[in-house]
Amino acid sequence: MNKPNIVILGAGYGGIMTTVKLQKKLGVNDANITLVNKHDYHYQTTWLHENAAGTLHHDRTRLPIKDVVDFSKVNFVQDTVLSIKPDDKKVVLENGELDYDYLVVALGFEAATFGIPGLIENAFTISSINSSRLIREHIDYNFAKYNNEAENKQERLNIVIGGGGFTGIEFAGEIANRVPELCKEYDIDRSKVRIIVVEAAPTVLPGFDPQLVEYAMNALEAKGVEFKVGAMLKECKPDGIVIEKDEKREEIPTNTTVWAAGVRANSIVEESGLEVNRGKVEVQPDLRAPSHQDVFVVGDCALIMNEETGRPYPPTAQIAIQEADVAAHNLSVLIKGGTELETFHFNNQGTVASLGHDDAIGVILGDKKLFGWSASVMKKIIDNRYLLKLGGVGLLLKKGKFNIFSK
Amino acid sequence: MNKPNIVILGAGYGGIMTTVKLQKKLGVNDANITLVNKHDYHYQTTWLHENAAGTLHHDRTRLPIKDVVDFSKVNFVQDTVLSIKPDDKKVVLENGELDYDYLVVALGFEAATFGIPGLIENAFTISSINSSRLIREHIDYNFAKYNNEAENKQERLNIVIGGGGFTGIEFAGEIANRVPELCKEYDIDRSKVRIIVVEAAPTVLPGFDPQLVEYAMNALEAKGVEFKVGAMLKECKPDGIVIEKDEKREEIPTNTTVWAAGVRANSIVEESGLEVNRGKVEVQPDLRAPSHQDVFVVGDCALIMNEETGRPYPPTAQIAIQEADVAAHNLSVLIKGGTELETFHFNNQGTVASLGHDDAIGVILGDKKLFGWSASVMKKIIDNRYLLKLGGVGLLLKKGKFNIFSK
Repeated sequence: MNKPNIVILGAGYGGIMTTVKLQKKLGVNDANITLVNKHDYHYQTTWLHENAAGTLHHDRTRLPIKDVVDFSKVNFVQDTVLSIKPDDKKVVLENGELDYDYLVVALGFEAATFGIPGLIENAFTISSINSSRLIREHIDYNFAKYNNEAENKQERLNIVIGGGGFTGIEFAGEIANRVPELCKEYDIDRSKVRIIVVEAAPTVLPGFDPQLVEYAMNALEAKGVEFKVGAMLKECKPDGIVIEKDEKREEIPTNTTVWAAGVRANSIVEESGLEVNRGKVEVQPDLRAPSHQDVFVVGDCALIMNEETGRPYPPTAQIAIQEADVAAHNLSVLIKGGTELETFHFNNQGTVASLGHDDAIGVILGDKKLFGWSASVMKKIIDNRYLLKLGGVGLLLKKGKFNIFSK
Repeated sequence: MNKPNIVILGAGYGGIMTTVKLQKKLGVNDANITLVNKHDYHYQTTWLHENAAGTLHHDRTRLPIKDVVDFSKVNFVQDTVLSIKPDDKKVVLENGELDYDYLVVALGFEAATFGIPGLIENAFTISSINSSRLIREHIDYNFAKYNNEAENKQERLNIVIGGGGFTGIEFAGEIANRVPELCKEYDIDRSKVRIIVVEAAPTVLPGFDPQLVEYAMNALEAKGVEFKVGAMLKECKPDGIVIEKDEKREEIPTNTTVWAAGVRANSIVEESGLEVNRGKVEVQPDLRAPSHQDVFVVGDCALIMNEETGRPYPPTAQIAIQEADVAAHNLSVLIKGGTELETFHFNNQGTVASLGHDDAIGVILGDKKLFGWSASVMKKIIDNRYLLKLGGVGLLLKKGKFNIFSK
């Protein structure tokens, strides 16, 4: 009865997919599998911008862990991870400790704020169900307040998005769709509302095809989004931000700054004593930590070099899900006494960024560019494919996106 | 072409009903009728507590003035009244001035705060569409924020209602129905939320039959409402209130104090130079101001003594609507050169207070007590009857309450 303990930290894309794969590969007599997560639900981080904008309810984005993880095969501990002690093979939780023989670190990302003054205190992030529905309610509240003050405050109607990367642009598209509804709800003239994307790079969506970037900017501008590119966010205050562009400073009044300009690995990883590079564990091809052969790392906490570009792969859901496949496979091999571990190779299935539910841009099949309705449909297909993989047809029907013909 | 100018200030119950009656009684050659209102919509003040609780959307409570007032017969000026100069027969608006030959003052109520420190700054009132939807959003926002803070703050989940009169009790009933939904929406345990009614009198609903009061308190307590009767509100702070009961002070943490413990007539009336008593114009039996025979006053700005009790009638929608009938009749008589004016007599059609959409208490036909489902149905019948009177069957079908069988 001396079964090895497998502990999986985090039920995001990487963690939950590793768990679901493992419960298929291993029998209850092979290992004790324990999944640790802060909440009793899994959520799709790539949908959170819709919850934040209020265009999709957060219950569509999350699902009970028990719906996809078989609790007769896997122990579930709802708790917050405080630290990892890899030399002691221990994990410290808020309400206890766990010993492990094998550990899967899938703790995801946190916002990187680069020391910009006031950002931690005053900006919102699209990082969890809690933080996203707070953005929705914060914007609603400011719009509701606007007509209740003797002097109208423009900062209540200005929405600033820090960062024109993937998340920033996707949120801009959603909130641009939402604003007309908000204006109707609170009797506010649409022309008074500003949505401003601030991006330090010379262009938004860096790394995307320039033609698609142009399409995206035009589409969003047509919906009333303003762009400040080549502009650095210098300070974030409760009622405004300071940006600098061409050595000129500008203040923009706003109560709502959504910071979407940078993520880093969960800082527990850096503090754990695992060997790190830029805060992440640069994993072996078998996804184990070089310094600790009993620790697998998947998702945003793992660093894998793209040998073609010489730069790390960006942290995406797609790569986390693929890593989970390999980690689960290798773990089951080790548990069964094998030694032949698989090597991770990223299989790029393309990237699609939504511009509201009715428009998108993307690249698939290596170099095929998509935009407009076809890209929007492709985005939903990608989302649905994940649900199918995670929980089968039942989950797909329950949580899938099928509104492909609505404009 | 020397037509007299009739100016009606306010499109609440009294003002809009006077206007609708007048447009039937007078032809376009008889008089110029001008209705002045801050918004281009009329709203049912007696439904606002539902909008504030979030159990009914505010668009159900309001209706475009143009839907019931015929703009080919009545001029509509959307503006805010700043002052009345009865000796000059003038009304000063934010964006202009109006001369009148006959004036109808129907400016409604404002909150009476009795000089309680912090109340104006920190408490909410259920007084308009704007203020009511703000309460809804404020509560939502605090619930959304609760799970986003390292240390949970009880003041975000405590809802204090200042005043156990009609509005306070009706709001308590609605918010008690709403809280379970809010808890589900924001993943909060229902047992953590408190709804506290603070009433200075020894009982809530003073003036109501004691048996019905007991029914109401039991019904609300069963929904989780707490009562502090005989307790004075001493101070209202942004994050709490101080009450005093039996010479003991208690602090209750709350970000949400809804003040429903007192109304007074719009202070423009007191400042106008019209003769006032307790801030209201004690009108003649024909509803004219004793000091100015060309000024009618209806609704919450008019004071009429109940000769049976020796006390003024309370400001209600019912009395405002009945006054509008008499004011419109008497105005049309005067316009047509008559002198035989009607005398106002209050016809008490009963009073029903809701305890959420599914329960109520009331007295009709003089002394018939109602409670539970039958009272709840009666409440909806009263609401529907008003819509029928104001805008006919079309309006009733559009805005009526027909959910009498839902529990």
